[in-house]
Amino acid sequence: MISKKMTKMVANSSAIRAMFEEGNRLAKEYGRENVFDFSLGNPSTPAPIEVNDGIIDAVSNLDSMTLHGYNNSNAGFEDVRDAIAKSLNKRFDTYFEARNILMTVGAAGGLNVALKSILDPEDEVIVFAPYFGEYKNYVENYDGVLVTVPPCPGNGFVPSLEEFEKLITPKTKAIIINNPNNPTGVILNAEFIKNLCAILRGFEARFEHEIYLISDEPYRELAYEEVEVPYLTKYYANTIVGYSFSKSLSIPGERIGYLVIPDEVKDYDELFNACVVATRILGFVNAPTLLQQVVKRSLEAKTDLEFYDRNRLTLYEGLESLGFDVIKPQGAFYLFMKAPIADEKEFVANAKKYNILIVPGSSFGAPGYVRIAYCVAFETIKNSMEAWKKLAADYNL
Amino acid sequence: MISKKMTKMVANSSAIRAMFEEGNRLAKEYGRENVFDFSLGNPSTPAPIEVNDGIIDAVSNLDSMTLHGYNNSNAGFEDVRDAIAKSLNKRFDTYFEARNILMTVGAAGGLNVALKSILDPEDEVIVFAPYFGEYKNYVENYDGVLVTVPPCPGNGFVPSLEEFEKLITPKTKAIIINNPNNPTGVILNAEFIKNLCAILRGFEARFEHEIYLISDEPYRELAYEEVEVPYLTKYYANTIVGYSFSKSLSIPGERIGYLVIPDEVKDYDELFNACVVATRILGFVNAPTLLQQVVKRSLEAKTDLEFYDRNRLTLYEGLESLGFDVIKPQGAFYLFMKAPIADEKEFVANAKKYNILIVPGSSFGAPGYVRIAYCVAFETIKNSMEAWKKLAADYNL
Repeated sequence: MISKKMTKMVANSSAIRAMFEEGNRLAKEYGRENVFDFSLGNPSTPAPIEVNDGIIDAVSNLDSMTLHGYNNSNAGFEDVRDAIAKSLNKRFDTYFEARNILMTVGAAGGLNVALKSILDPEDEVIVFAPYFGEYKNYVENYDGVLVTVPPCPGNGFVPSLEEFEKLITPKTKAIIINNPNNPTGVILNAEFIKNLCAILRGFEARFEHEIYLISDEPYRELAYEEVEVPYLTKYYANTIVGYSFSKSLSIPGERIGYLVIPDEVKDYDELFNACVVATRILGFVNAPTLLQQVVKRSLEAKTDLEFYDRNRLTLYEGLESLGFDVIKPQGAFYLFMKAPIADEKEFVANAKKYNILIVPGSSFGAPGYVRIAYCVAFETIKNSMEAWKKLAADYNL
Repeated sequence: MISKKMTKMVANSSAIRAMFEEGNRLAKEYGRENVFDFSLGNPSTPAPIEVNDGIIDAVSNLDSMTLHGYNNSNAGFEDVRDAIAKSLNKRFDTYFEARNILMTVGAAGGLNVALKSILDPEDEVIVFAPYFGEYKNYVENYDGVLVTVPPCPGNGFVPSLEEFEKLITPKTKAIIINNPNNPTGVILNAEFIKNLCAILRGFEARFEHEIYLISDEPYRELAYEEVEVPYLTKYYANTIVGYSFSKSLSIPGERIGYLVIPDEVKDYDELFNACVVATRILGFVNAPTLLQQVVKRSLEAKTDLEFYDRNRLTLYEGLESLGFDVIKPQGAFYLFMKAPIADEKEFVANAKKYNILIVPGSSFGAPGYVRIAYCVAFETIKNSMEAWKKLAADYNL
């Protein structure tokens, strides 16, 4: 007899995960090389050398009780937070110190900590469709209400600020943006961010309370053709940045990331302390300590962007030449494609007949489209082209 | 503007953590060796050799994407879960398989996952005072109500089942027991457990719904003088065991543990799946992958029980000879002591004058007592005796 709330959440549970588990089943049946599993955002390049070197270095040089013990603060090691602050300052011309950094169990853990800290029941959180489907669960964990700005396929999925503005109410407590975007690969530029922040500031003044801008940035380092990803604390005071090393260091299983809570946030002390307490009482307690020390040692490491870029261009060009209607991604490692029929779930089911695993756009609030995660081996993309060709033929493309 | 709920939770926040942070402040001022910090359950023996060896072995021998990537199931690596099941079967004559084990971010993460899965608002969860204070937060995270069985100092803090029985209502959804107990060090024996389970079965039949017995077992391996700690799934079908390697391997910062959900639980499939989904949507996603592989390689490792036992006896005998009224602990690494005045918070404040840091019993639902965590260097215990003597003199002991 599980709880009623959980029964609902299980029923709506992740189509992405279900597809990924289906992929593992098919791989056992047909052999891994004959299954084209584009379902999950699981990085497919090894962690850069700094990661395993950092593990060995930390284990060899740090005292066991320091390395593996509880942190002095639930916010994490002071030296790690200090190193991250300095690294951000160097890259983005910011002025963070250790006190602005809170180590988290990945970005997912960080978002939960932030939302628990700020949401009262029925508070509204606005997201722009298509959006990462887990946001709905994260918001509902704290009895908040997810409000969705409809997708703008006509504008290459850059969201409409007019539609956004119509949805802001006195109950709006936060906005989540995801830049670069999962699932579209769109990168919101500085002009868009400036306009967004001007709107938010207007409503903050009108309602006389803060509206938090939560920036979910696991894909920050995956921006192609040197497109700039604006750093949001420079545009808006009440910003909380959630970062993860999952994609940048290819370590999603290790669960390590951080929140940035800048001094400019209203009542910084209160908010930071609430997030520290939330880290503790949600059961995270602190981000895994060894991995904190590892990311400190890997702040200069880079993932293999060229690897993903080759996948991106090969898949994009391949699908386009087959007649599919594809959005060219600027960042992340997903490609968003229009299904050739209105019911994209039927299209996804049909693709599975050719051992192609993709995720329906309705999981991201954008039905009629599908997400193709191209963080796979290059061979998977090359070898999948025959299967895509057969799939295209089914729809007379 | 943090949430109202969080404001309350921050206000009631952990006295243990506050004391620990105070300890670090005092250490900076007076030198670490002159501060007798008995505040936090942070293990003070290094991790056994198997831990760092296991780290090196996993990093050297496992493929980066397997080791650091997302797990195929949010429940964790199949091989790790299988090894844990086999190890439990060997030790406790149980019949678990991988499907009964769900890897978690420590026991704190596991308890949150279990409680999120089963609690609807206003469901009641019964605990026996004195109890680990975080249980209140974990239950309130999911809008449950913590119901407390009053402490039984007259019975050496073994709880009263008569008092317990009076508090069971149709809203009772779960009981949490903590064996060995934090903060008293009491170990509940098989006879107590049998009686407890008989009561629970009676009420399950009467109310026609499950009452879950949640066994929080981070201190299982810390039982002195070979006292047996009963394995609860053998006594009661609707049991969920929460385990952590924090104390047994001295790695509390690494956040690794597991839940056991036996086949005998009513609707096993539904409950296990709910806990897997809760792991994902609370933002844990999966337990840290490298550490999962490390605990698999350390299942035969043992912490230095003799080290803690020497601390236990030295502190117990020392305090008793000074005239303090002390409960002799059988397990864990805490000693529960009666304050020589009614207001134990005043006693705690007075102890701080001598650089002795201890935690008020009211943090555990047992005012009038204090908790002394003896997971410290042996020298700290020896060197603290002068300070304890001065403190005793203040009360004419």
